[in-house]
Amino acid sequence: MDEEKKQPFSLESDGNSFDQLFASIVNKLPINTSLSPLRYDLNAGVPDRESLPATALLTATEHVLSHDAGGALTYGGQQGYLPLREWIAARTSRLSNIKIDADQVTLTSGSAHGLQNVALTFLDPNDTVILGAPTYPGAIRTFQARETNIVTVPQDAEGLLPEKLLATIRDLKEKAITPKLLYLIPTYDNPTGTTLPLERREAIIKIAHDNNILIVEDEAYAGLDFDGPPPPSFYSIAEGKGIIQLGTFSKTIASGLRVGWITSSQAIVKTLVHMRFDNGASPFLHRIVLHFLESGEYIPHVTRLQSIYRERRDATELSLRKHANPYIDFTKPNGGFFFWLSLKDPLTADQLRSAAMKSNVAVTSGTTYFFGSGGENKIRLVFSALPPTDLENAVQILGNVMKTLVNNT
Amino acid sequence: MDEEKKQPFSLESDGNSFDQLFASIVNKLPINTSLSPLRYDLNAGVPDRESLPATALLTATEHVLSHDAGGALTYGGQQGYLPLREWIAARTSRLSNIKIDADQVTLTSGSAHGLQNVALTFLDPNDTVILGAPTYPGAIRTFQARETNIVTVPQDAEGLLPEKLLATIRDLKEKAITPKLLYLIPTYDNPTGTTLPLERREAIIKIAHDNNILIVEDEAYAGLDFDGPPPPSFYSIAEGKGIIQLGTFSKTIASGLRVGWITSSQAIVKTLVHMRFDNGASPFLHRIVLHFLESGEYIPHVTRLQSIYRERRDATELSLRKHANPYIDFTKPNGGFFFWLSLKDPLTADQLRSAAMKSNVAVTSGTTYFFGSGGENKIRLVFSALPPTDLENAVQILGNVMKTLVNNT
Repeated sequence: MDEEKKQPFSLESDGNSFDQLFASIVNKLPINTSLSPLRYDLNAGVPDRESLPATALLTATEHVLSHDAGGALTYGGQQGYLPLREWIAARTSRLSNIKIDADQVTLTSGSAHGLQNVALTFLDPNDTVILGAPTYPGAIRTFQARETNIVTVPQDAEGLLPEKLLATIRDLKEKAITPKLLYLIPTYDNPTGTTLPLERREAIIKIAHDNNILIVEDEAYAGLDFDGPPPPSFYSIAEGKGIIQLGTFSKTIASGLRVGWITSSQAIVKTLVHMRFDNGASPFLHRIVLHFLESGEYIPHVTRLQSIYRERRDATELSLRKHANPYIDFTKPNGGFFFWLSLKDPLTADQLRSAAMKSNVAVTSGTTYFFGSGGENKIRLVFSALPPTDLENAVQILGNVMKTLVNNT
Repeated sequence: MDEEKKQPFSLESDGNSFDQLFASIVNKLPINTSLSPLRYDLNAGVPDRESLPATALLTATEHVLSHDAGGALTYGGQQGYLPLREWIAARTSRLSNIKIDADQVTLTSGSAHGLQNVALTFLDPNDTVILGAPTYPGAIRTFQARETNIVTVPQDAEGLLPEKLLATIRDLKEKAITPKLLYLIPTYDNPTGTTLPLERREAIIKIAHDNNILIVEDEAYAGLDFDGPPPPSFYSIAEGKGIIQLGTFSKTIASGLRVGWITSSQAIVKTLVHMRFDNGASPFLHRIVLHFLESGEYIPHVTRLQSIYRERRDATELSLRKHANPYIDFTKPNGGFFFWLSLKDPLTADQLRSAAMKSNVAVTSGTTYFFGSGGENKIRLVFSALPPTDLENAVQILGNVMKTLVNNT
């Protein structure tokens, strides 16, 4: 705690300002990202608005309120609606080839809330967490808010580097620091779009097991496959051992529902449920989601999404090659929402972002995704939210901005 | 951190058990309360199932999904849907006679989640919080999870005692401890059902202002008036100064929606929004709730609830007088969900609770509502969830159990 906070202050003279009473971490946390008002928003990682299953969700709501209004509209417990947990357990069992029980699933208000639940359950202040560099800024904020010691491991075009992970853990051990938890987004990573290959997954699991480090596997983009299925999940490879898997319906149904889940061992799930302070998520939403999942419309809906987003990825890639080729390097993502561009000299992310804004294109600077320094020559570009023509226009503008910047240097 | 946690452990030998990795607070937190499977559940503070506005909520959902599916089903920001915040601000303005702006309102996943948001924003470990004794167990857990120093001030039949509050603060100051925050439920308190009279409210505000202590006013039961309106809120009396007010639609619409809010100064609300880690609450639910509020059905619905719960309160009171009079003292609540019974010698709460369970009646021991010791001769009895006949039967059984216990002592 800093000294300033300990100074007395006068409510009388200071009206409504209670700044002195804020927790010490408040001013150290980065600000949350938000939507951009610009014409071309390649900034916010949001799903396509046109393909939202509004009609199917209305049908589901009608069913739920006419068949189970009492269950839907009263408290549903901290762990969430059992039949939805059963559905998730059955699907995860199929995908991972492991028998998973409904007791191994807990429902959260989106996977971001799930991650906070994990942070509260496993981390004391000063505990050490390992994150990829770059990674999801919401994860950085969540672990920072727990006042943990954050250590990063670099990622390359195939994701987190096992040998760097091992070296980092060895360095920490030499300082008598035992990391508790490794957080990663192995499939269609945010922000890099990369998918960890099987061999890296296996190597990382071995390192984690050897060092008793828990792996938090964020599967937010799971299911948005454009080029066939990704490698088996960490959960599947490790047969669940030492893995906490975060899932969400934000990307495959609707981000506005705020329905996510966590899958892990029974003991861990029991403790995650214990460390809830919100009286549980909405049983109304749980029932609506389950009815939609069971309607037979969910699988075709996800297939449709895959095709929409694949088309957008391809349009973006083509435009990038056409309009920005001399200025960037990138790897084509196999799913998800993101391109991660490496800017060639002399371009920098901050410079490009500012200049693009003036031309009505919003992109995010790579620095947003690093704890500490990094990403100064990286840009994240979201292709999920706009139709192909808009993406092509936006990328063309971006290419022109790059050209102008390079020529003026 | 205790030594045990620092011991190495083997994932190989220990399967899925990661107990050693849990945060140190995990095993110190009391378990969450839950519903009872018994025939007469006077234990869980839940609304009446029969009076849920299912039809009106379905109409609202139809409207929302046909007019604003894009807004309802995509991320809505951390602060929540502006028109719903405007509605809440306008209503609070009317009720408190102060001009409140939508920027002074933030939407949460129920008021329990709001309280956690407050705890994260204002409290560092070892900060001191003042709670009433007894109080809402969810508040105790939430503040415990922040590893704060919890200090309690006794309540009598009219709520928190201002002179005891002042004495407590003086004692703390002598030990160089400056409390930051006072949490209370001034209207239809959980568990006591009491409503703080105006003079006490004024005295408590003066003490808080003199000592730069923030007041968190939990208005979870606001609106459930049986005998006319309660005294003005703390927010109204203090003209908002140094007050954080928690609100929820759980009691007047449906606890299964999980829609609550916080009202305070703009600066405080801005910081509460900053200290969110869940990507915001559900914009789908926000729109459904707003449409119901504006439908013209909300006010009659609340009036109907008042009459349903008034009838239940009266039936319970009558039955308590008839069947349990020799064994208890209590004050009739003017609203809300709860009777708080003081058991006369030789009855104890634990003994009564166990014996009642065997006769299919669930009640909660007073000890649940105290941090540390207290409540050993108190019982909380919920009258909201059951119709009058069930309440009469349950209270008759409870009276017989008391009689038997007393006669067998």
